[in-house]
Amino acid sequence: MKYKIRGFKAGSLHCGIKKYKNDLAIIYSEVPAVASAVFTLNKVKAAPVILSQKHIKNGKISAIVVNSGNANACTGKIGLLHANLMAKTSADALNIKRQEVLVASTGVIGVILPINKIINGIKKVCRHLNYGHWQKCAAAIITTDTFPKIILDSFMIDGKKCNILGLAKGSGMINPNLATMLSFILSDVSINKKYLDTAFKEVVSESFNSITVDGDTSTNDTVCILANGFAGNKAINEKDKHYNKFLSSLKYVMTNLAKMIVKDGEGADKFIEIEVLGAKDKNQAKSAGLSIAKSNLFKTAMHGANPNWGRIMSALGNSGVYFRENKVDMYFDKLLMAKDGCEVKFNEKESNRILSKKNIKIIVHLNIGQGKANVWTCDLTEKYIKINAHYRT
Amino acid sequence: MKYKIRGFKAGSLHCGIKKYKNDLAIIYSEVPAVASAVFTLNKVKAAPVILSQKHIKNGKISAIVVNSGNANACTGKIGLLHANLMAKTSADALNIKRQEVLVASTGVIGVILPINKIINGIKKVCRHLNYGHWQKCAAAIITTDTFPKIILDSFMIDGKKCNILGLAKGSGMINPNLATMLSFILSDVSINKKYLDTAFKEVVSESFNSITVDGDTSTNDTVCILANGFAGNKAINEKDKHYNKFLSSLKYVMTNLAKMIVKDGEGADKFIEIEVLGAKDKNQAKSAGLSIAKSNLFKTAMHGANPNWGRIMSALGNSGVYFRENKVDMYFDKLLMAKDGCEVKFNEKESNRILSKKNIKIIVHLNIGQGKANVWTCDLTEKYIKINAHYRT
Repeated sequence: MKYKIRGFKAGSLHCGIKKYKNDLAIIYSEVPAVASAVFTLNKVKAAPVILSQKHIKNGKISAIVVNSGNANACTGKIGLLHANLMAKTSADALNIKRQEVLVASTGVIGVILPINKIINGIKKVCRHLNYGHWQKCAAAIITTDTFPKIILDSFMIDGKKCNILGLAKGSGMINPNLATMLSFILSDVSINKKYLDTAFKEVVSESFNSITVDGDTSTNDTVCILANGFAGNKAINEKDKHYNKFLSSLKYVMTNLAKMIVKDGEGADKFIEIEVLGAKDKNQAKSAGLSIAKSNLFKTAMHGANPNWGRIMSALGNSGVYFRENKVDMYFDKLLMAKDGCEVKFNEKESNRILSKKNIKIIVHLNIGQGKANVWTCDLTEKYIKINAHYRT
Repeated sequence: MKYKIRGFKAGSLHCGIKKYKNDLAIIYSEVPAVASAVFTLNKVKAAPVILSQKHIKNGKISAIVVNSGNANACTGKIGLLHANLMAKTSADALNIKRQEVLVASTGVIGVILPINKIINGIKKVCRHLNYGHWQKCAAAIITTDTFPKIILDSFMIDGKKCNILGLAKGSGMINPNLATMLSFILSDVSINKKYLDTAFKEVVSESFNSITVDGDTSTNDTVCILANGFAGNKAINEKDKHYNKFLSSLKYVMTNLAKMIVKDGEGADKFIEIEVLGAKDKNQAKSAGLSIAKSNLFKTAMHGANPNWGRIMSALGNSGVYFRENKVDMYFDKLLMAKDGCEVKFNEKESNRILSKKNIKIIVHLNIGQGKANVWTCDLTEKYIKINAHYRT
């Protein structure tokens, strides 16, 4: 499939941070795009994150420069200088303002960037941007992900076709020290900044903030959206049916990218969806789900097709969420495992069949309210340990 | 070594919860002992925990009945009935009040206790209590720990020899679904309840609450202390030098038990001490240490002797603790790895030698205050996954 999105170009190359694979990419919008972004909540923020947080405040972004293989984190003042240089070099080459450039890095922490290689690379790549480069671009931003993550969705507003293209980089961690998540969402829709922010914030919460691989938040996480208006629709300016179409397409794109990241989690054998129902509210449901998703005991049980529903109860008990033990029901797919907080007689053959699948759904019903959330994670495997223990930069 | 402690007897046997190993133990004080206890903070509390929380309120305890192989957790009303029956049967057999009995269980969650076997076992074991049974008792309370955990310490108060005996059960998890921590501390010291509580609370925080194996808090955690006064010292009734002697001995006993639990963590190859210095206060130092100790990325790095100090920085950044990135220094043993938040040139051979040892010390200096804490954990290994994934009750 050929991915295209009007008014956006990209380029990528190998500048020399990694040994062989492409390690530098530029995303460029032909006009300054309305933009929104969220960044890592880790107190230790990489230099590119600190810089991008400043630049996003302008509300308009024209380019994103991304390198993989080095996170430019824990690199002090020199790191900030380098992030600034990456923005400035890109801006000069593209004839845009420095403040219109976002910078993102992923890779090893604590190592100074080979900045000359990067500067030369940026100059070179900016001369060869093109409209059909997206798959290569998705490949250049990954580290040890086993596949590039890219998705396109479309919707109509008053006869105008609008598109959303999403790229993401997930949690492969052999060389880098952290499972950094980067995602760039590009749309040709015309939308007012306020409504872009609102939609983006809502969808981030239900997509990238509803997944966990190993509970560690990286120093470099960056998710941003650019909307350049090339679709030519009347700008979305209220929460009307057009806004809802955009919202729903954005959800589709970002949720699918988030799921791809989980499926490609380090060493993951299985994709696990946890649906929490009947919580006090949505946030409580999500907290409960994430507490289960983060439990090593739960994740190893899933790996071994081990029907230890007690580990789910225990993770629930550690979540800080309000519930009553004697009201909790639990299902593996459609198989009832526990009712009113106690085990029911269940068919072990059936539970084994369900937990041996590559996609597992766990349903936890708290039965005390209307709050509902879905979170996604993967199992914890021997391979995760091998990847993270035995490889070193 | 023969362990003895005046005025305390114990007994254990195989009642039939487990296939072969002893699974039932009684600890008995010849007079009602002043007692203090802490229990799991998990919202899902096992029936014996709920009952013991009630009984400890009396302040005097004469016996502890413990079974392994079944946690009596998530067992509803029938579970509570069974815990009560265990207390009542013990009380009748020992001719004490039911409210003077603590009950503790460890093992699989969600399965109803084989209560008849346990009742018969209690009746039998109460007829054969003796003063020298402690090693067998320590063996009867474990599940898949690879060694029983027992320690004795002594100190003098005005010419009277006082003793503290500690038993613990750590985090072996093949059969049980959770790494339950049980610990019973017995002393012949004479001490006022108020000062027992104060000392116990302080020491729990610095011992059992300063360790983590996999970040999961069990439904059954119980740590209690009984002091029966048989040493014949003048009762400790203020924070004087005698109190300090007791406190220091209690610290020795409980810290060593906590370290034994970590050393025997599931699949653990290495024992890791994390010392956090220069935090705003003690609690912040401890939170920072535990955040590092709980990070899978850090634990796998230690397993692979991988000098990824960036993972420690990242865990610190996720801890919620106040610090400034550019003030953090980090050492592996005495080897400086990072200064002012940035990597220093370090000898890779030396870092490899340090991280290949069975005992690793990590020092993190935040350089912003006087707060200091030590926490202990173990590495995360392929064996942990195997133990928790592939075995099933």
